[in-house]
Amino acid sequence: MIPNILKKIMEDFQNLPGIGEKTAERLALFLISDMDNDQIEAFSDHLKRLKYEIKTCPVCHMLTDKDICDVCSDHDRDQETIMVVADAKDVFILEKMQSYQGTYHVLGGLIDFSRGITDKDLNIDTLSERIKHTKELIIATNGTVEGEMTAKFLKSLFEDQDLKITRLASGLPVGADLKYADELTLSKAVENRLKY
Amino acid sequence: MIPNILKKIMEDFQNLPGIGEKTAERLALFLISDMDNDQIEAFSDHLKRLKYEIKTCPVCHMLTDKDICDVCSDHDRDQETIMVVADAKDVFILEKMQSYQGTYHVLGGLIDFSRGITDKDLNIDTLSERIKHTKELIIATNGTVEGEMTAKFLKSLFEDQDLKITRLASGLPVGADLKYADELTLSKAVENRLKY
Repeated sequence: MIPNILKKIMEDFQNLPGIGEKTAERLALFLISDMDNDQIEAFSDHLKRLKYEIKTCPVCHMLTDKDICDVCSDHDRDQETIMVVADAKDVFILEKMQSYQGTYHVLGGLIDFSRGITDKDLNIDTLSERIKHTKELIIATNGTVEGEMTAKFLKSLFEDQDLKITRLASGLPVGADLKYADELTLSKAVENRLKY
Repeated sequence: MIPNILKKIMEDFQNLPGIGEKTAERLALFLISDMDNDQIEAFSDHLKRLKYEIKTCPVCHMLTDKDICDVCSDHDRDQETIMVVADAKDVFILEKMQSYQGTYHVLGGLIDFSRGITDKDLNIDTLSERIKHTKELIIATNGTVEGEMTAKFLKSLFEDQDLKITRLASGLPVGADLKYADELTLSKAVENRLKY
């Protein structure tokens, strides 16, 4: 009953995370009924170009459409400070702050023994190379078990070198109410308290 | 910072209903990181084919990739019963029942004076033609103001003809609790009560 090509489009949408059968149907019908040919052709064209145009920066492993990414090739940024993150999405989030002026290093994941991911699977060789010309390494992995484990691993790997290693501060979110904070966050906030 | 083509894909996703900036970013990054080239190429190809392959059936105005849709060309179905619906999505929903054996007629909307939509904007001429060879017309428009108004209009248009006109039953949803029913539904359920 449902035309074949429409079924295929619904399947394509359902392959995406968080999109179920009903949503896929709604999106496919929206394409047919509410989008004009030019918009759909453009969407199709962008998808086709996506994998060919996107590369990873050989320096920091961030997604880019240039030979070297915008951050690594920008000499107005502090090339001697590296913020280590798990993946490209983290860089997007951090860049929205518009206050950080150093560079990044995308690990491509976090150490996670339960899923068989070790330091060998991460972009650590290139980081070791970069460290030689670096003054500060900011470890910005998540505050999860895997994030902390990866942070500890990086610290142990580089702590003998002439390098300042820092970690993003743990504490209460700005504007947060004490009564909603979990005990671990609260104890971190006390431990890392600052002169006022 | 965000590569141009990735930005474009995010915009494409944001053009779809119910997809905001964060979701668009998540979907675009999923394409890059978790989907292989073949899947993306297939998605791109399906989009390109969509508008060329989908037509509307000249009989019932349902979406189809054939000259006449599967339902209208199926002589195992009762071609003398027409269920009138607002749009193609309704047909998908009704076909999932797998119990209705008649045909459909897609109006392409509902009468809605507040938005300037009158009977002239709906597929009513072709319905008038079909009515001549029809025994029962089931009006399956929504129970909204617009759905009721359109139903009344169709009834007044065809009631002089030798034709049984019916409307989908109003009442309590199957399994529903009385205390959650609104008064209008409840009074419809009492009014349309059946011998038990």
